Amino acid sequence: MKEMNIQVLDEYFTAERARHLEELCEFLRIPSVSSLSVHHDDMARAAEWIARQLRAAGVPTVDVISTVGHPVVYGSWPARDPQAPTILIYAHYDTQPPDPLDAWITPPFDPTIRDGRLYARGASDDKGNLFIPLKVVEAFHATVGRPPVGLVFLFEGEEEIGSPNLRAVLQKQKDRFHADVVLSADSAMWGQDTPSLVLGSKGMVGLQLDVRGARSDLHSGLHGGLAPNPLNALASLLASMWTPAGQVTVAGFYNGVHTLTESERAEIATVPFNEVSYRQSLGIEALVGEPGYGPLERNWARPTLDVNGLWGGFQGEGVKAVIASEAHAKITCRLVPNQDPAQVIAALQQHVRMHCPPGVTVTMHAIIGSSPAYTIASDHPALLVARDALRASYGRDPLMIRLGGTLPVTEFFQTDFGVDTVCLAWEMPDENLHSPNEFLRLENFDRGLRVYADLLSRLAHQSEREEQI
Amino acid sequence: MKEMNIQVLDEYFTAERARHLEELCEFLRIPSVSSLSVHHDDMARAAEWIARQLRAAGVPTVDVISTVGHPVVYGSWPARDPQAPTILIYAHYDTQPPDPLDAWITPPFDPTIRDGRLYARGASDDKGNLFIPLKVVEAFHATVGRPPVGLVFLFEGEEEIGSPNLRAVLQKQKDRFHADVVLSADSAMWGQDTPSLVLGSKGMVGLQLDVRGARSDLHSGLHGGLAPNPLNALASLLASMWTPAGQVTVAGFYNGVHTLTESERAEIATVPFNEVSYRQSLGIEALVGEPGYGPLERNWARPTLDVNGLWGGFQGEGVKAVIASEAHAKITCRLVPNQDPAQVIAALQQHVRMHCPPGVTVTMHAIIGSSPAYTIASDHPALLVARDALRASYGRDPLMIRLGGTLPVTEFFQTDFGVDTVCLAWEMPDENLHSPNEFLRLENFDRGLRVYADLLSRLAHQSEREEQI
Repeated sequence: MKEMNIQVLDEYFTAERARHLEELCEFLRIPSVSSLSVHHDDMARAAEWIARQLRAAGVPTVDVISTVGHPVVYGSWPARDPQAPTILIYAHYDTQPPDPLDAWITPPFDPTIRDGRLYARGASDDKGNLFIPLKVVEAFHATVGRPPVGLVFLFEGEEEIGSPNLRAVLQKQKDRFHADVVLSADSAMWGQDTPSLVLGSKGMVGLQLDVRGARSDLHSGLHGGLAPNPLNALASLLASMWTPAGQVTVAGFYNGVHTLTESERAEIATVPFNEVSYRQSLGIEALVGEPGYGPLERNWARPTLDVNGLWGGFQGEGVKAVIASEAHAKITCRLVPNQDPAQVIAALQQHVRMHCPPGVTVTMHAIIGSSPAYTIASDHPALLVARDALRASYGRDPLMIRLGGTLPVTEFFQTDFGVDTVCLAWEMPDENLHSPNEFLRLENFDRGLRVYADLLSRLAHQSEREEQI
Repeated sequence: MKEMNIQVLDEYFTAERARHLEELCEFLRIPSVSSLSVHHDDMARAAEWIARQLRAAGVPTVDVISTVGHPVVYGSWPARDPQAPTILIYAHYDTQPPDPLDAWITPPFDPTIRDGRLYARGASDDKGNLFIPLKVVEAFHATVGRPPVGLVFLFEGEEEIGSPNLRAVLQKQKDRFHADVVLSADSAMWGQDTPSLVLGSKGMVGLQLDVRGARSDLHSGLHGGLAPNPLNALASLLASMWTPAGQVTVAGFYNGVHTLTESERAEIATVPFNEVSYRQSLGIEALVGEPGYGPLERNWARPTLDVNGLWGGFQGEGVKAVIASEAHAKITCRLVPNQDPAQVIAALQQHVRMHCPPGVTVTMHAIIGSSPAYTIASDHPALLVARDALRASYGRDPLMIRLGGTLPVTEFFQTDFGVDTVCLAWEMPDENLHSPNEFLRLENFDRGLRVYADLLSRLAHQSEREEQI
């Protein structure tokens, strides 16, 4: 990147910072919770808000694409130089639900700055990180006229529910989404002073179990020892899915999972993980997981099965001596490379059939679109450029990490377009993503603007770089 | 009972029936849910309503006794004849919570008559059955001037929460509660054409388990395979309390439980239990319970452990990929004779300590006052009189049954006063006690008035009867 450009863009970010933060707060005030139908109209408002931002940033083609779910925001600004690469910038404008509401210090959709941190649902995951490339494009437009590379924008509203409709949009309008590389502004950063790039992320399946007993709730005295208890049955059924030590016992669950090689274990071991400070940050006394693996090995390279929700019977104060008629659980499994999501669902279905306690019926249905795991080659050219940009900002090489989380879009582009995804965003592990009091460090917002601007400039000269090598 | 009296009282019940039902509906409209603090004032209203009824029925001494919980309604009407026995009539005016509200066809506190059934929370358990002796006393007062026996009334408002304060009231004012026998208007009747009397009921303990993991909810991708999951842990902990077949595995749980003798099994076998029609009435495919015992043996003579409520994490629509910070369960155990409630609680506490999954903490606290089981001798004189009264009304001998449910007051009177309790009420197993759409058969209300009037008259002449024998 030319030094002049750096300085001009830097000055622009500084001069416009107050307005930028005001705009971000405006965005965060829209309760765009994709999983709750009550927020259906808010999702459309959030999509239109982004479209206006793109137009104001000079993007010549902007389109809000309807789906059977929530809209996709599309934008396109081809490069002047036909040799310049085309970068597709991906992010998502939907958020997780904010509950439990009473655990928030300030309301989830009333963004508040405290101690250099911006608190709101979606502040970090992913509205704050989506907002960074928006303002970078605006800055190029306002200072030097246009960005140095061709850009395609893809902002979806269904990431938190497994992107059930995105793939259809991409396949139906395939020509509009061609790019040389995808840049995902939904990603984790290892630590405040420790930059990182992502070599892979986990896949996911999500299921709900519904256990039913008698036609209605029953008096536990009149019917105790007679009627099946769906709550007892659900506990038994769930507990049958893992050993006390934490290995999943569902037959076929680990099919395709390859044994970690010594070199993979050595690569993971290069990433520092401080178990004591991790435990302290969470307020827990012990880490838990599959025996035989280290913490990062489990988080990155071993599949997991977590119950995310559990309910049935009486939840009020005091006692209600009832045998409830139904009980429910939501579970998600995070998958690793070579695990087939459909096969994992089939294995769980078979397990539920085999282990259904007597007297009750159990049904299972998917509550999220399933995604396989994703990986990118560690010597991918765009990844190397991103490494350079991070090194320039942080003064050190980024760690090469994996994500325990899931980015379905990476797999869509890899499978359907043959294009890889470089993940670059500033979601920190302690920023309460998916939890009460989610926040974004404003320091990272400032840094993110500069790194993104630098990265786009470097990508513009990637071909020169490759020629030099 | 003199034939003239029967006819006079019968005519009175018929003439006053419309007003009586109106009054019962008025009583049922008071949402006297003892376990919910929001209904605190309704409890006091219900107690005052009963006190007014007693006074109107001619009862000379009526008192609403305050407790640290809900009030106890006391009444006393000594017999004119010093030879006549004193009968203490017990019932409770509190009800179970009405939830789930959306399962009620008509609202729980808006009593509605359909097809000869009065639908409302508490219609059968126990306001409807409490109302029967009130109207019988009123009828004696209105027709022949006064009841034929001495009467003490004890109506409590904490039966559904384990009667935590009743014992203290009884002990503090012991002289007011002396009686020859207790008549409980909170009891089950075997079937519409099958009268029954109760030889025993189960004890109960109720506990809540609270499982805690990290300080707040966590992203299941960022923390999967690392952080303990309280929902997984709760399922494992609960499932460790029983075998898949249904035997409780908590060490010490069965301490003191005596093996059923052949004669006890034979006695239970005399009571008809139609498993097919029971299953059909509940809409279930199989009965569930401790192996090695028949249905009524399990319900009457074997202790049970039921999870009554279960909750944690995300319960909304769709998916929230979260590792929740806490999970909860409510459990109750129904106990049989010779089981010590305190010892059962200690056994459960020890089990929880021994089986607490790694990384989480589990605490346990009582949510109801605990009660041991109760039995009455099958040749108790008052029980024999009640048998005569039932035989006179139904034309057949009542079955001698036991209850899977719990009546703490029976044990208080047996232990503290040396007085036994005869249970006589018309709560039918299909009347949705503790469930949505609870109802009372009006046919049983009419029959109950006559049987109670007859029973009090027969008890007045019990000494004559004994002399004759």
